[in-house]
Formats: sequence, C-alpha cells, structure tokens
Amino acid sequence: MNKPIVFLFLCIFFSCTWQSDEQVAEKIIALELDALEKWGKGDPSGFLELSAPDVVYFDPMTEKRLDGHEALTKLYESLRGQIHVDSIQMSNPKVQVGKELAVLTFNLVSWSGGTGHRWNCTEVYRMDNKEWKIIQTHWSLTQPELKQTPG
Amino acid sequence: MNKPIVFLFLCIFFSCTWQSDEQVAEKIIALELDALEKWGKGDPSGFLELSAPDVVYFDPMTEKRLDGHEALTKLYESLRGQIHVDSIQMSNPKVQVGKELAVLTFNLVSWSGGTGHRWNCTEVYRMDNKEWKIIQTHWSLTQPELKQTPG
Repeated sequence: MNKPIVFLFLCIFFSCTWQSDEQVAEKIIALELDALEKWGKGDPSGFLELSAPDVVYFDPMTEKRLDGHEALTKLYESLRGQIHVDSIQMSNPKVQVGKELAVLTFNLVSWSGGTGHRWNCTEVYRMDNKEWKIIQTHWSLTQPELKQTPG
Repeated sequence: MNKPIVFLFLCIFFSCTWQSDEQVAEKIIALELDALEKWGKGDPSGFLELSAPDVVYFDPMTEKRLDGHEALTKLYESLRGQIHVDSIQMSNPKVQVGKELAVLTFNLVSWSGGTGHRWNCTEVYRMDNKEWKIIQTHWSLTQPELKQTPG
C-alpha cells in the first residue's frame, strides 16, 4: 500500500474511534442512568457490571470506604430486591473528561412512596479495555437532617 | 550532538521527571494533609490554592453541587476563622493514579473540643502545568445520625 492510502486509512480509523468530550459525557451519563434504572427496581447488576475490580465506594450507611469489587458485591447483593424507587430526577450532571478517566458528578432526587430523598454523587470512570468502568463511587445525602450538627 | 548523547540526555530528563504511582500518591497525600492542617486552624487558603478553576464541590451542608473556584471561594471565605480542629486522623488513604488524574479517597476523624466527627472524602486531582490541582471535592459524613432514615 502506498503512503497516501495508509494515511487515509489511519484518518478513517481515528475519526471512527475518537470521541469528543461531549460524546464521552453523553455516554457516561447514559451508562449511569441505565444502572440507576436497574437499581431502582432492586437490581444491583447494572452497577456491579459497570464497576472495575479495584473500585472504591462510599455511601452514608457504610462504616468506612469499601475497597474492591468483592466488597461491593457483598454489600449490593445484600440489598438485592430491597430497593424500590418510583422515579429519579438527575440534576445538572457534569463530566470532567481526562485522557483515560472521567469524573461524573450530579445531584439526584429519588422518589419512593411519595417521599423524596436528595443525594450528592461522584462517580469516577476509567477506560478499561475500551469500556468505561467505575473506579470510585461516592453517594452522600444532600443537607441531611441530623440529630446533632457536625462541628 | 550525536545520537547516543541525545539519547542519554533524554534518558536523564525522563528519569528526573518521571514519578512512580507510589511517589504520586505520597505527593498527593502530603498536599491534602497540608491543606487540612491550615483548614483546621480556620484558614481555607490551602484548599483554595490547591483547587483548579473548574473545581466542583460537595459537602453535607451545601444545597447542591458548587461549580467553579469563585463559588468555592465564596463558601470558604464565609467560613474563614470559624473552623477550629484540635486534631485529625486520616485512615487508609488510597490514590488511584491515572495519566493526568489521580483519585484520593480516605476516611477521616476530626476532633474538636473532645468530640470526634467521622468523614468520607474523595478528592480528584489533575496535573495542571506541572502542579496537582483539585478538580473535584466530595466531603460527606460517615454513618450520620439522622432524624429519619433515607429510603
């Protein structure tokens, strides 16, 4: 093959595989929403499939950070079938895109039986073997009503 | 200059600038501890200097995610001189190192006047112009004592 044809093939290859930051953001938000939809029906499989082997995890109920997919699986499987969310409203999702990591942050309201709960969320995604995987999850409550105010 | 000498110079240059994941982790934990030390004395300057223009921020008291250094400055300057932490204990800090992003997570207990408060923290650092800058901060309370349990 002569050089112009090789160059043309390379251009086509990179234009097919390259994604803009906006495309990465759309993809990641779609992955998160898919996993959230399953989660709201009591199925943690979406988040488990999306999480990397070295994922780290915080939520307000865990005693400390959970490390690794096995620990996350243990937690999530203990909740299988117990979560029932009627609807969710994700607010203002933002994705900060790096070379192989992307940081998704958003606020979310989850509605269950007429009650809304407000959440803060940070998900860090990493491109592993051409697939985005979560390496860090942090869920917390937005302005929780506490028995005592933290100092 | 002949080729072997250029090659030698390049080797020396990269060996001087390259950092292992462990070195990156040490550096980032040290930056965080420095900023926390100032914070505990009522001085938010450490975190403000360490944060990037496009930083996003969650803590349990904010109504929603804060976007950008200006919003963070407004919050932090409103707290200047009001925070007094006697001591902190950072537990099990972990840094997941990427090409230009690094994700620091840890648990922390802050002691003030004999009372300890437990925190979860995620900081995402980005290498900007050869300096690590925070692009995402998420502070939340570990197992907060709530008036009502979230559903």
